[in-house]
Amino acid sequence: MADRSVRTESPEPRTQDIEGEVVLPSWSRRHVLDLDDFSRQEIEQVIETAAAMKEVLSREIRRVPTLRGTTVVTLFYEASTRTRSSFELAARSLGADVISIAASGSSTEKGESLVDTVRTLQAVGADMLVMRHRQSGAPYLVARHVNMSVVNAGDGWHAHPSQALLDAYTIYRHLGDLRGRKVVIVGDITHSRVARSNIWGLTTMGARVVLCGPPTLLPWGLRPDQQREEEWGLPSVEVEPSLDRAIEGADVVMCLRLQLERQQAGLLPSIREYARLYQVNEERLARARPEALVMHPGPINEGIEISPAVAHGAHSVIEEQVNNGVAVRMALLYLLARGKTNNREALA
Amino acid sequence: MADRSVRTESPEPRTQDIEGEVVLPSWSRRHVLDLDDFSRQEIEQVIETAAAMKEVLSREIRRVPTLRGTTVVTLFYEASTRTRSSFELAARSLGADVISIAASGSSTEKGESLVDTVRTLQAVGADMLVMRHRQSGAPYLVARHVNMSVVNAGDGWHAHPSQALLDAYTIYRHLGDLRGRKVVIVGDITHSRVARSNIWGLTTMGARVVLCGPPTLLPWGLRPDQQREEEWGLPSVEVEPSLDRAIEGADVVMCLRLQLERQQAGLLPSIREYARLYQVNEERLARARPEALVMHPGPINEGIEISPAVAHGAHSVIEEQVNNGVAVRMALLYLLARGKTNNREALA
Amino acid sequence: MADRSVRTESPEPRTQDIEGEVVLPSWSRRHVLDLDDFSRQEIEQVIETAAAMKEVLSREIRRVPTLRGTTVVTLFYEASTRTRSSFELAARSLGADVISIAASGSSTEKGESLVDTVRTLQAVGADMLVMRHRQSGAPYLVARHVNMSVVNAGDGWHAHPSQALLDAYTIYRHLGDLRGRKVVIVGDITHSRVARSNIWGLTTMGARVVLCGPPTLLPWGLRPDQQREEEWGLPSVEVEPSLDRAIEGADVVMCLRLQLERQQAGLLPSIREYARLYQVNEERLARARPEALVMHPGPINEGIEISPAVAHGAHSVIEEQVNNGVAVRMALLYLLARGKTNNREALA
Repeated sequence: MADRSVRTESPEPRTQDIEGEVVLPSWSRRHVLDLDDFSRQEIEQVIETAAAMKEVLSREIRRVPTLRGTTVVTLFYEASTRTRSSFELAARSLGADVISIAASGSSTEKGESLVDTVRTLQAVGADMLVMRHRQSGAPYLVARHVNMSVVNAGDGWHAHPSQALLDAYTIYRHLGDLRGRKVVIVGDITHSRVARSNIWGLTTMGARVVLCGPPTLLPWGLRPDQQREEEWGLPSVEVEPSLDRAIEGADVVMCLRLQLERQQAGLLPSIREYARLYQVNEERLARARPEALVMHPGPINEGIEISPAVAHGAHSVIEEQVNNGVAVRMALLYLLARGKTNNREALA
Repeated sequence: MADRSVRTESPEPRTQDIEGEVVLPSWSRRHVLDLDDFSRQEIEQVIETAAAMKEVLSREIRRVPTLRGTTVVTLFYEASTRTRSSFELAARSLGADVISIAASGSSTEKGESLVDTVRTLQAVGADMLVMRHRQSGAPYLVARHVNMSVVNAGDGWHAHPSQALLDAYTIYRHLGDLRGRKVVIVGDITHSRVARSNIWGLTTMGARVVLCGPPTLLPWGLRPDQQREEEWGLPSVEVEPSLDRAIEGADVVMCLRLQLERQQAGLLPSIREYARLYQVNEERLARARPEALVMHPGPINEGIEISPAVAHGAHSVIEEQVNNGVAVRMALLYLLARGKTNNREALA
Repeated sequence: MADRSVRTESPEPRTQDIEGEVVLPSWSRRHVLDLDDFSRQEIEQVIETAAAMKEVLSREIRRVPTLRGTTVVTLFYEASTRTRSSFELAARSLGADVISIAASGSSTEKGESLVDTVRTLQAVGADMLVMRHRQSGAPYLVARHVNMSVVNAGDGWHAHPSQALLDAYTIYRHLGDLRGRKVVIVGDITHSRVARSNIWGLTTMGARVVLCGPPTLLPWGLRPDQQREEEWGLPSVEVEPSLDRAIEGADVVMCLRLQLERQQAGLLPSIREYARLYQVNEERLARARPEALVMHPGPINEGIEISPAVAHGAHSVIEEQVNNGVAVRMALLYLLARGKTNNREALA
């Protein structure tokens, strides 16, 4: 996407130099668990900070000593290459020490011993915990029992806030202000923590969110709007089962990975049928706006939820998403560390 | 335990600055395999050095470059979050490089290939090896075949010297000189490497050690004292099967984790019965001295060997133990590195 | 081998200081996948650079900041202690950041998702990828899909170029110019990536390579020379089934590890029979030249392919090979980084 114009300046004309002497707006949040309680201003601050981090990453020596002496522990109860590497690299680019713990399922899976584990990590000297867990809500449980900062790197079907923030940042870089932008999220909404966190982030930023997918994979099927909100506690979004109609005039088309085991669970007639109805391909994409972005949290099932031509085409910002992920995660770690320092009324 | 007075000065009024120009007593030990051959002076030197490290860990940037260019390898044949993280953080806080190797059981478990593995690690450039192994004595085998320093991070039921040193340091911080202090170790003594190393460390420091637990989980059952020493090669300790009597006037109550599989092995009538007789709870703790410390090497089975109220109560220093672990391990790595340098008659 | 004379100067009297201002010959190679297309000059340049790195490793602080800000990812689909540690230590000694990914077989083994994984690692910010994979050719597939440098740390039975380069460097240090030197490779040639890469490296350097092993473990059995080259695409080597004859006047005897499962596959009558015919022992070694080197890529089956007396005897450079491995891998990472910089026409 070299031909695509990208905004490198911050959302607001505020001086931003992570090493210089600047007065930054305060950041008081101690954990990043989901985006459901993030304000518009907070998301903007992440975007702004990520832009500064992007600059750091473009240097010959991609490293600042901002978090020197800080220890970030990544505790992953689910396998992950992408997200773990992204957080590790983010932490190291800020000069932090990283300890990686790949928790094998069996012995460490009970809630009880999870709390024991994270308390130990805190006592050992961890300052921030980046965690992924199979159980929705696990990071909330942890956050209640520790003083260190907790970043949710994915919990069950619930939330994946750093992914949604990097998606917001990626959209912002290309399209600027998100207000009024039409963002279509296509696929298995029910089981997607990426979708959930994006629904929160995008609506907070003023985007118009349209969900599209087979009724069996939509949280509310086709029930009326009001009921949805009450039952699911999600902000107001539109639902459009036809992808052709949903994609009409879209600014952003966000595909979700189809977990192939959904078919065995009886939620899909067949993968082929799914691809016929919900694959984002060139023909369908032609209905979107000319500068529409195509996004995907990865890893991609090429030829299923997205056609190869679209995945690697001029509208795709999929690789840039991964790339922006490091900058956004640097921003989160930086803001959490700064917040902590502010709270201690001392400046690093 | 914010209300508890803590000694921050060293055991002896000796200037101690790990970065300044001071004359330190010599340290000639190359490995830390167990405490059975540690002198009182050596344990004091670890405590003293740990106090200096504690100061480093309290700084804004918790890091000194003392071990820059040194490579510490952690080789764990048993899963561990606590001990491995603690050593890793200790090594990094001293500026060392860390390489972590989680050895999967099957292919690397035979003694023969263990020696091959560690020789390779040495040839690759490791300076210090921190190892945990299921077989008692494995670190001794390794130490005979390498020139690098070996730290035993737990071998079978045999020894766990860094745990016992951090326990000694924790007691020292609160109670000062250990001489004459009554320390009760409660639980499954037979299968506990923590207990064994503590028995050595505590008796060397002059404490009076009382073991308490079901006869099936005591190494000598209830046989007379003399015979014990001969059979087990342990220093002289007392045995008191009744926890109520054992805890009477204790300065320290050290609970051990009950491995729940002991019941299946027929060594316990039931977990409930065990808890009834050997749980450290508030009622029992009232018999100890008013400033008594409650310790546990973790992870805790709350409600089994210790009641929740005691585990989180005013006497508990359990979290501080984990915290002190990093300082004590920094001290060990530092002393081993300095010993090495002294031996080479060159100063870093 | 303290008694053995070692050349510490470079192959050619060229000033070599990796930190100073020197004009180095250009290095344009972006990947290290095998040695089949390495020129003599390139191998010499690796040897020369490794000698400079060896000097760095002999310093009190074994570290230069040459690759500061560079991220090296090790992606191992097969377990490895030796090679992974060696690359990690090499990268860290050059100041690079290292992210280790131990890919568990099942979910990540298909070619398709391998490409997805490495593209992600690149997008996340990896500059160099060191990879080991069960499938021959996997690193070539990867190299076609990424911009970062790929180093093959072993692919199936195919190639292990860094091992062959460290072997060449080790021979060079002891014997100087390899031209005309007789190198005997003994054992299971067919299944050995070490043998294949060494055949390429050694013949390119002008050595005379003699292969020796049971016909069932030689790629061509006993068919005529010409046919071998055509079928296997390997350079011209000699085959001598009798170890006594092969070892006659040898400068180097390179033993390969016998995979004990070869017997179950019916390729060996018995391990005992194999040892009787192909074990390198003192009696046989007496037929080689007086300063002959004995090498082994490890791990050793003592008493099978090599006798204990020879493995630990005066001719053995086996531990030195492991040691040289770090210097040679530093050289590779350094040259690849420099090549990259040259290509960008900017100097770090």
